[in-house]
Amino acid sequence: MRKVTLKENERIDDLQCKGLKIIQNTKGFCFGMDAVLLANFCDIKDNSEIVDLGTGTGIIPLLLWAKNKVKKIYGVEIQKDVAQMAKRSVFMNKLEDFIEILNIDLKEAPDILGINKYDVVTSNPPYMVSGSGAINPEDKKAISRHEIMCTLEDVIRVASRLLRHNGRFFLVHRPHRIVDVLCLLRKYKLEPKSLRFVHPRVGEKPNLILIKSIKASKPELKFLKPLYVYNEDGSYTDEIYEIYGMERKKRC
Amino acid sequence: MRKVTLKENERIDDLQCKGLKIIQNTKGFCFGMDAVLLANFCDIKDNSEIVDLGTGTGIIPLLLWAKNKVKKIYGVEIQKDVAQMAKRSVFMNKLEDFIEILNIDLKEAPDILGINKYDVVTSNPPYMVSGSGAINPEDKKAISRHEIMCTLEDVIRVASRLLRHNGRFFLVHRPHRIVDVLCLLRKYKLEPKSLRFVHPRVGEKPNLILIKSIKASKPELKFLKPLYVYNEDGSYTDEIYEIYGMERKKRC
Repeated sequence: MRKVTLKENERIDDLQCKGLKIIQNTKGFCFGMDAVLLANFCDIKDNSEIVDLGTGTGIIPLLLWAKNKVKKIYGVEIQKDVAQMAKRSVFMNKLEDFIEILNIDLKEAPDILGINKYDVVTSNPPYMVSGSGAINPEDKKAISRHEIMCTLEDVIRVASRLLRHNGRFFLVHRPHRIVDVLCLLRKYKLEPKSLRFVHPRVGEKPNLILIKSIKASKPELKFLKPLYVYNEDGSYTDEIYEIYGMERKKRC
Repeated sequence: MRKVTLKENERIDDLQCKGLKIIQNTKGFCFGMDAVLLANFCDIKDNSEIVDLGTGTGIIPLLLWAKNKVKKIYGVEIQKDVAQMAKRSVFMNKLEDFIEILNIDLKEAPDILGINKYDVVTSNPPYMVSGSGAINPEDKKAISRHEIMCTLEDVIRVASRLLRHNGRFFLVHRPHRIVDVLCLLRKYKLEPKSLRFVHPRVGEKPNLILIKSIKASKPELKFLKPLYVYNEDGSYTDEIYEIYGMERKKRC
């Protein structure tokens, strides 16, 4: 691990796999379980070229690198200081050959990265429609949470343009946006192929959806078993433990 | 209860509520739990005018009458002998003032019943795309299961035409068709407002979805808690018991 200089409110967290570490800003948007579940949900073939849209801290590129034999992952992030922090995480982990962070608007990504060529696109985008609730547009967290800099339609349109024929798009989102998500995926020829709901507990409504779509594929949707996060006593379920724990065993 | 003449392979089943009985053909398509769950899922205001598309035996109109103070329910069924059987069930239960069975193609329903006027439309339509699997088009069960006489798009387009502004459409369908269902609902201005998945057991993927849409409403989807049908030991869950049992207590 290389040494890096931390800025105010930044700390280094241990990802507990393959010795990976990540820089996060304690006053900013820190990665959550959704990013970990999305990275775990992706089935990625060896030597894939990948783009992560709205990469934030770079958590998804780091986890995808750790779990797979990837050729290259591009992490696209519009916020300058967040992108610079992600770049320092890549440098710190000596992964410049595998992960490149681009400080660009994701809407420019097809022009800069090229179209119809990537094997995989991933995204853990802002979940909230802009205008829902009071938002301070100066707030870094707000940009990660609300569709201020890009809409869901931007993310899906760009994913479709970047992907090659039969390329895969992995998305995590909130269930209450499912109609928007599924209709936009179909509109941009990213046919939803498998869908997994994440429920906090048995008997509770889902609070996340994981969706795999394939570009220009025929309609044929598989539902996967629900994923429960907590047992009734508040402890993590075996599956969540496995998602975190197996990675640890496998990678470290 | 009035006496009726049964045809070959027909039997009378007791619905165990309000003394209701129904005629079913043991060689035909008998109503399943989906119809009961759909009828239970509908929240219907007093004095509503309702159309049930593809009513089959008339089970949904019968259950809706039993559970609510309805003004009138029209059951639309294309199969002549099935519609006649449903008419005899209505006659047998002395419900001609409340339930009318029409032996018409549902695509003609807006012309015959009128448009933009109904409070509620319900449907438990054929689940399978026509052409998926071997189908004998003479087979009555096939017409109830496969989109031979109508497509999902026909059902949704007709529901939208029949409904008044802010009228409600209640639909039960299979999860693997969710992309088609949600995209078509939005296409025909029936905005999905609440969604409930039915799982055979905890931890298993869902096998039914219940969807409530409102005509010309703004997007705002609520997920409801999952409904589990069986306990691990194979017995019905309390909620299923309640759906059947509470009706019994309330109605009988």
